Amino acid sequence: MTGPAASAPHVIAIVGAGLVGSGWALVFARAGLRVQVYDPVAEVRARILPWARESAGAMAAVGLIDDVKAVLARLHVVDTLEAALDGATYVQESVFERVEVKTDICRAIDALMAPHAIVGSSSSGIPASRFTEGCTHRGRFLIAHPVNPPHLAPVVELVPAPWTDAEALEGARALMHAVGQVPVMLTREIDGFILNRLQGALLNEAWALYDEGYASLADIDATIAHGLGLRWAFMGPFETIDLNAPGGIVDYAARLGGMYHAMAQSRTPRAWPEETIRRAGEERRSALPEAGLTARRAWRDQALTGLAAFKKASGLAP
Amino acid sequence: MTGPAASAPHVIAIVGAGLVGSGWALVFARAGLRVQVYDPVAEVRARILPWARESAGAMAAVGLIDDVKAVLARLHVVDTLEAALDGATYVQESVFERVEVKTDICRAIDALMAPHAIVGSSSSGIPASRFTEGCTHRGRFLIAHPVNPPHLAPVVELVPAPWTDAEALEGARALMHAVGQVPVMLTREIDGFILNRLQGALLNEAWALYDEGYASLADIDATIAHGLGLRWAFMGPFETIDLNAPGGIVDYAARLGGMYHAMAQSRTPRAWPEETIRRAGEERRSALPEAGLTARRAWRDQALTGLAAFKKASGLAP
Repeated sequence: MTGPAASAPHVIAIVGAGLVGSGWALVFARAGLRVQVYDPVAEVRARILPWARESAGAMAAVGLIDDVKAVLARLHVVDTLEAALDGATYVQESVFERVEVKTDICRAIDALMAPHAIVGSSSSGIPASRFTEGCTHRGRFLIAHPVNPPHLAPVVELVPAPWTDAEALEGARALMHAVGQVPVMLTREIDGFILNRLQGALLNEAWALYDEGYASLADIDATIAHGLGLRWAFMGPFETIDLNAPGGIVDYAARLGGMYHAMAQSRTPRAWPEETIRRAGEERRSALPEAGLTARRAWRDQALTGLAAFKKASGLAP
Repeated sequence: MTGPAASAPHVIAIVGAGLVGSGWALVFARAGLRVQVYDPVAEVRARILPWARESAGAMAAVGLIDDVKAVLARLHVVDTLEAALDGATYVQESVFERVEVKTDICRAIDALMAPHAIVGSSSSGIPASRFTEGCTHRGRFLIAHPVNPPHLAPVVELVPAPWTDAEALEGARALMHAVGQVPVMLTREIDGFILNRLQGALLNEAWALYDEGYASLADIDATIAHGLGLRWAFMGPFETIDLNAPGGIVDYAARLGGMYHAMAQSRTPRAWPEETIRRAGEERRSALPEAGLTARRAWRDQALTGLAAFKKASGLAP
């Protein structure tokens, strides 16, 4: 590590503290850093500490956090953007994903930040060049896109804008690595980055199969949850195919590349059909009524907490 | 359940006992059924019991099998197809995936089977209509495609040919459910079925991103292994997005459908490029030399065994 981002311990500012921002706060506090958390909405601010206490407690119960009290003591919820940025060397921005909203908050951060601070945006698909061009310190801005929730899914995509300093990118990489996340480095911008492009490709095929009536929503889900998704919980798609042919990935491509190409040719990109979305909504709401969504999200996070503990105990964690 | 497939306990014939066939043998023996295992190659036959002993032992170590000895006692390795089919009510065919090879073995099974037996093929992408048309009992044949290895990944795709009896399909479904697998029902044939179409869609996008130099193979893998793949280890893609927008799947489609459609439009299907495959092979062999592939496959199966135990203990198993 070189430069100010590396030579001193970081102070973190969290800007926007919904579920993504709160998860980020826990990531950095767990790693021993001071975290200053700001959200413009008072009710959101009021939820941060109770949520962090509960989440950190659940992680401690399975050995993912040692000292909950110490972690919580590092979280400082503040009432202004100024207070969040005071002394901050790294800023994680997680506001609503609209270009106008991102542009406004980046200008505000830009006006208050230390010149050598680094600003990572949680944007899940919009590249930084669309909302940081007008910033005085635009070379210090980049995308740092996590999976939701970031404290339970360690991957983070780092995507530079054309004007992002190499040193800021490297500083963000080193910080993410140091706090136990898994930084994935993109060489340049692309809409959706890697993660949501992969998710989108799979979703587009899933919607097409459902639309054409090949199977129920629940059965399409089961092919992943009780099949294809199991290996992907600890291996990527390339390693998966590398182990799935006697001679490795080149052998696999020779055997099955033609089949996959033919499948791709059989599809024309089209929007997810309205009527099919409506039908999918009915199938989901019949499996899980709307009133149950919140409890099911808690179930998901509990499962992810357990999965993280299992991977750690089995040497499958990063 | 109705008909002979359901009213009596099944006797299972395994035809083709490579890794997929051997895994199937363990699935049925674990569930308490008599299994008659045949492979034309003597060396393959010789490997079945030692492999089953080791795999069942690893499963017993984490609570996935109670009585290894009893499970192994139900496995009967036989020297002829006739002996395998003797009294069999369900046949799982797992020979090499080539239309000619499948056609030949199905004719041979057809000539020896009981008229009411059911024959499931492990074919991973070729529909049954391409190799069962000439069979006298063609109404009893269908696809029963597992994930490799079937004893650790419970999903199985059941795909009827146009001439498959509804009663045979229902018999296979009931049997798979009874032995603890997760049957996914396709209404009709499509190349690649659901699982490999979903895998193929994701792989095509992954190859394109790698080909265009957006990230390394290892980093693309990390976006799945430490990010997107975590939720998919226990939830399907539709449930994932249903929980990822405040108002559920319809809300999610309204917010992000446009972005995913634009991504799809930015891609034209093309074959995985030769030069890119070669480069991927080099990157993989530098991460894992060819001599290490076998050990890494054992590591994968150990991880899948642990994951199955974790899911069972956490109430996430089917």
